[in-house]
Amino acid sequence: MSTVARTSRFERLARAVDGERLWRAHEALGTIGATGRGGVNRLAFSQEEAEARRFLAVEAAKSGWSLAVDPIGNLFIRRPGTDSTAEPVVTGSHIDTQPTGGKYDGAFGVLAGIEVLRALDAIGLRTRRPIEVAIWTNEEGCRFAPGMMGSEAFAGIRPIEQMFAVKDKDGVSVADAVGEVLAATPQAERRPVGIPVAAYVEAHIEQGPELEASACTIGVVTGIQGCCRFRVEVCGEEAHPGTTRRRQRKDALMTAVAMIRAIEARVEEIDPKDELRLTVGMLQLKPNVASVVASWAYFSVDLRHPDDAVMLGLASEIEPICRANARGCELKVTEIQRALSTRFEGKAIEAVRRATLRLGYRYLELPSGAGHDARQLARVCTTGMVFVPCALGISHNEAESAKSEDLAAGTRVLAQALLELADDY
Amino acid sequence: MSTVARTSRFERLARAVDGERLWRAHEALGTIGATGRGGVNRLAFSQEEAEARRFLAVEAAKSGWSLAVDPIGNLFIRRPGTDSTAEPVVTGSHIDTQPTGGKYDGAFGVLAGIEVLRALDAIGLRTRRPIEVAIWTNEEGCRFAPGMMGSEAFAGIRPIEQMFAVKDKDGVSVADAVGEVLAATPQAERRPVGIPVAAYVEAHIEQGPELEASACTIGVVTGIQGCCRFRVEVCGEEAHPGTTRRRQRKDALMTAVAMIRAIEARVEEIDPKDELRLTVGMLQLKPNVASVVASWAYFSVDLRHPDDAVMLGLASEIEPICRANARGCELKVTEIQRALSTRFEGKAIEAVRRATLRLGYRYLELPSGAGHDARQLARVCTTGMVFVPCALGISHNEAESAKSEDLAAGTRVLAQALLELADDY
Repeated sequence: MSTVARTSRFERLARAVDGERLWRAHEALGTIGATGRGGVNRLAFSQEEAEARRFLAVEAAKSGWSLAVDPIGNLFIRRPGTDSTAEPVVTGSHIDTQPTGGKYDGAFGVLAGIEVLRALDAIGLRTRRPIEVAIWTNEEGCRFAPGMMGSEAFAGIRPIEQMFAVKDKDGVSVADAVGEVLAATPQAERRPVGIPVAAYVEAHIEQGPELEASACTIGVVTGIQGCCRFRVEVCGEEAHPGTTRRRQRKDALMTAVAMIRAIEARVEEIDPKDELRLTVGMLQLKPNVASVVASWAYFSVDLRHPDDAVMLGLASEIEPICRANARGCELKVTEIQRALSTRFEGKAIEAVRRATLRLGYRYLELPSGAGHDARQLARVCTTGMVFVPCALGISHNEAESAKSEDLAAGTRVLAQALLELADDY
Repeated sequence: MSTVARTSRFERLARAVDGERLWRAHEALGTIGATGRGGVNRLAFSQEEAEARRFLAVEAAKSGWSLAVDPIGNLFIRRPGTDSTAEPVVTGSHIDTQPTGGKYDGAFGVLAGIEVLRALDAIGLRTRRPIEVAIWTNEEGCRFAPGMMGSEAFAGIRPIEQMFAVKDKDGVSVADAVGEVLAATPQAERRPVGIPVAAYVEAHIEQGPELEASACTIGVVTGIQGCCRFRVEVCGEEAHPGTTRRRQRKDALMTAVAMIRAIEARVEEIDPKDELRLTVGMLQLKPNVASVVASWAYFSVDLRHPDDAVMLGLASEIEPICRANARGCELKVTEIQRALSTRFEGKAIEAVRRATLRLGYRYLELPSGAGHDARQLARVCTTGMVFVPCALGISHNEAESAKSEDLAAGTRVLAQALLELADDY
């Protein structure tokens, strides 16, 4: 095949990407779990997520693409290639959201993948390798933490039995909950967890401010920064607020406050450049009433930094800092996740870069601050990501917003990258 | 009537107080809302509280005492006097609890009052004034804050319309909820809020460690320390924990933590003797998940000190301290309660002191660290309180514990004090 002919296929495919159709797909999917304030509440394993899966299955059936599902609930929409024995090229993302999430986080990667399949169908183009759109299970990890369950199971990073045993705060396990989503697509072929994959490319909104600030349409993602997650449990004693002296108390909230403030103070000390991300997003109390000294506190600590040494250095200090501020309370510090930084390498990121240059978009090469399923896929195949801007970098928020033309541009880059990878041997 | 004859009536009455019957009454009432860990969950206006009211109404009916109820749900069990025109002497307390409360807080004051009526019946003694056992509505203020609603309405401290408008976190108002408890005693005579009262004496567990530590059976309560209560609302912005720099965040939790720690630091500075009680027992977050920077935090601040000047001085600093730590978040500080210290004076405390001396119990004169309905009654009549020890001073806790002999002793003091006040003109 000559270079001229190849260029022509890439151009035809990019032109076949229909930005309006893609936008309508976002609007349609966004109605499932819509919060009424422009956002989406579609937790992993919820009825809303199951409904979203049925919606995607109907779309796949209309186009004649096949479905497969694995035991953790990863759903795959497959467009066949000319070589049925070839390992597929995979794209996709997730359709679960935060409780007050946006319409684009995750959804864009799935809908962009489907739009690529539609564009290929529209111009009647057969690739050599099959192309699959993966809908990875429980990326967000709200109800069942930590997240990234689908892609971690697929890449063999955590045993699936360990994930099945994770329980939500009502005591329901993932093993119980996964039935909800498996039942949504009874027609899907059952497949084991993890199959050989030729390459993985994921499209996603940036969830940060860099692209918008530099007026770029495309981010060629160079890797994903590392992340360490902890849960800290503080057990004190209930007491009366009027009669118990401060020094006699074992006040779980005041202790948690002292611990959190001490962790923050340490971050301020070692990270004056504000590159270290520290988030305590969850704090639960018992009994959590104004007139009783709290007997129990439970909070999350989320640490991220592009340099693993910095992140792991602080991670090793979390338990000592908490112990130094325990004030007589019992304490349990659990590290629930440790993901080192990932660098994307090989044909997948090169295909993304080439597509971006070929299409002439203004772009940045940048690392991802957020974690994505692509981090796990990078352990088993060459992997890349395409970012598009989102307004003010706001994400995990109902105000999350992206422009139709940027979503279309990202999808054109994805389309050309997938085409290159699917025809590559 | 000679002094000899009076002494003899007091002695006969004290002997007629049946400690075993009183203990069984605590056990029986404690089954209503029992938590299974020795505690009680009987929130104001709950079905459990309604059931407890029906239980007390049955006890009253067995003895032929009459019932009255007012629009805020205060329930009165009345034993008539020989002078039907005389203002009653009132005793009582509350039967609502914290979500993980004990069996004695409040319940003892009500059951001790009923035991006094039983002892009077047992020896066939008619008092001149009627004696009423009051069950005050929503003392604890868990679901609907602030508490003390029944006694504050009775004493005319807060307008009842304002209480009716208070809503719980599900949006249910007191006006809606009060029906639950009014329906429990349809046979009760309806009476307006607040009637003239000759005297008020309330029995209660100490909820502090002083009596037990000094091996005393009885506390003659000299007054109640003041209390200021606030709610602080912090509005920030949801953000992604991996992409948003700390300085770009409006992190409601980290802001709340900084505020709470700053208030605590100020208390440590001005109160080295540990007399000031600072409690943050309630903190709510939205969305309260590990992977989203919190956009909203809401917490309680409860301040108490026997010296009003100290308490009010710190109270005036709460909003400025919060503003100084707002970190760009929106802030709303609301003072929901301000109760100055109360000193018990006049015939009621004198009757408690005389009864204690007459019965020969080892006792302390001490102020109450906890708030009680007696604080409100002291605004409308001479008022006193009788304390008995509770184990380790633990209260607002399922582990709350008191000894049968101490409860009986406190009830004997209460009985003699009520008899003296009911025969006094």
